Amino acid sequence: MCKTVIFIGAGNLATHLAAEMSAAGFRTMQVYSRTADAARTLAGKLGCGYTTDIRDVLPTADLYVFALKDDVLPDLVRLMKPNGGLWVHTSGSSDMNLFESCNARYGVFYPLQTFSKEKPVNFAKIPVFIEANTATDVRLLETTARMLTRQVICANSQQRRAIHLSAVFAGNFTNHMYAIAAHLLQEQQIPFQVLLPLIRETAAKIETISPDKAQTGPAIRYDKNIIGKHLHLLDQEPELQSIYESVSQDIHRFGQKNNSHE
Amino acid sequence: MCKTVIFIGAGNLATHLAAEMSAAGFRTMQVYSRTADAARTLAGKLGCGYTTDIRDVLPTADLYVFALKDDVLPDLVRLMKPNGGLWVHTSGSSDMNLFESCNARYGVFYPLQTFSKEKPVNFAKIPVFIEANTATDVRLLETTARMLTRQVICANSQQRRAIHLSAVFAGNFTNHMYAIAAHLLQEQQIPFQVLLPLIRETAAKIETISPDKAQTGPAIRYDKNIIGKHLHLLDQEPELQSIYESVSQDIHRFGQKNNSHE
Repeated sequence: MCKTVIFIGAGNLATHLAAEMSAAGFRTMQVYSRTADAARTLAGKLGCGYTTDIRDVLPTADLYVFALKDDVLPDLVRLMKPNGGLWVHTSGSSDMNLFESCNARYGVFYPLQTFSKEKPVNFAKIPVFIEANTATDVRLLETTARMLTRQVICANSQQRRAIHLSAVFAGNFTNHMYAIAAHLLQEQQIPFQVLLPLIRETAAKIETISPDKAQTGPAIRYDKNIIGKHLHLLDQEPELQSIYESVSQDIHRFGQKNNSHE
Repeated sequence: MCKTVIFIGAGNLATHLAAEMSAAGFRTMQVYSRTADAARTLAGKLGCGYTTDIRDVLPTADLYVFALKDDVLPDLVRLMKPNGGLWVHTSGSSDMNLFESCNARYGVFYPLQTFSKEKPVNFAKIPVFIEANTATDVRLLETTARMLTRQVICANSQQRRAIHLSAVFAGNFTNHMYAIAAHLLQEQQIPFQVLLPLIRETAAKIETISPDKAQTGPAIRYDKNIIGKHLHLLDQEPELQSIYESVSQDIHRFGQKNNSHE
């Protein structure tokens, strides 16, 4: 059973996860961040010490959570001295094996959600994908994760990469569709708020209908008249025109694929 | 004051709108559809007569709602005999002036929402954009719309076109991002449901933070390492690869635009 934890990283995810673990009874022993301010802030919240030198990380915790950007993760892992704890990273796109020659026990703890520092999230509803290099540590991670959320799923590195990629489409790219819509409305002095009922309904619909079947609008009907008008409206914005065209074509392609199954 | 209404069209929008208007005390006198089944079904719900011949539409209603696909709208309007009622269409992308030489009184009643026949919607929260060829009929449409919803907004045809285009991005294109995500997960035997908390949070976030500021993920950081991995994962799906690339570049472009304002 994990009781003590050390956070390597003090960003949005580390901050949210540390608060949840603390509330669930885990004790944070130390926080590492290369930025002293960030390390001090998080350590202050948790009532523990901090360090900005990876070689000074305490060797005695049960669990080490590497909540770092993917590009700094491998280097930092290599700089840390091996110990008896379980080392996990929180990255969707990094392989578990990056820990391989650095520590005996390792794994992944990947919560699928978008975290902003200011905005609280209900962690109990967030799916957490786990992986570890031994069956014992898979079970240990599962027990740990179950104290924080109801949805714990075992996934290997290949599956996790697909999950992360799908989350980029469903999260980041969806948000960009909102951003483009806001930009188009702003040009006509229409407040973005008029779109909120549509945005809510679009997100709510797919809780009961699969997105394939929920599609409406000019692209799925392949209404060349409206598509042509819309492309013309975007004449001054070639980037948006190109996104409009390729997404519309792809909606049509998905639609045909589905029909051919029926 | 509008008291009686005739629906030209019996699709999803006509069905939802007719039910709302009926509940608000309007009386539907007749339903027209070229499909007898659709006309009969809707007329049956409303307790009125129906016709499949546009020349048999009764001339005595206060309001005529043309809830039709854009491409059949102008032809059908031309076939109908002029009368003393107010003719409105419900299309985001059609000009008000398509009624010009066909009737003396005309306008637009455009509710911004996605309608599925099976799924009820809360009409009171749907923004309705109105336009008419006289100030008197603008006021009449406003009074009519206020009996159905709290959000009534005057918009000219140019503004309405931008609103419809923005709704395609925020609604249809967002739904396609969900569909692509579902497809990617399916290939790895991961249920789509794991994405629902992320989808909910992404939609909820922009109620309080503008979509520009809410953006997270590899594209806004321009994390070439992850972007490269994701493009590689999509090697077998050139259409998705191209959408991934153009949306990521555009997220980066929007991010730089915002930074330069700060």
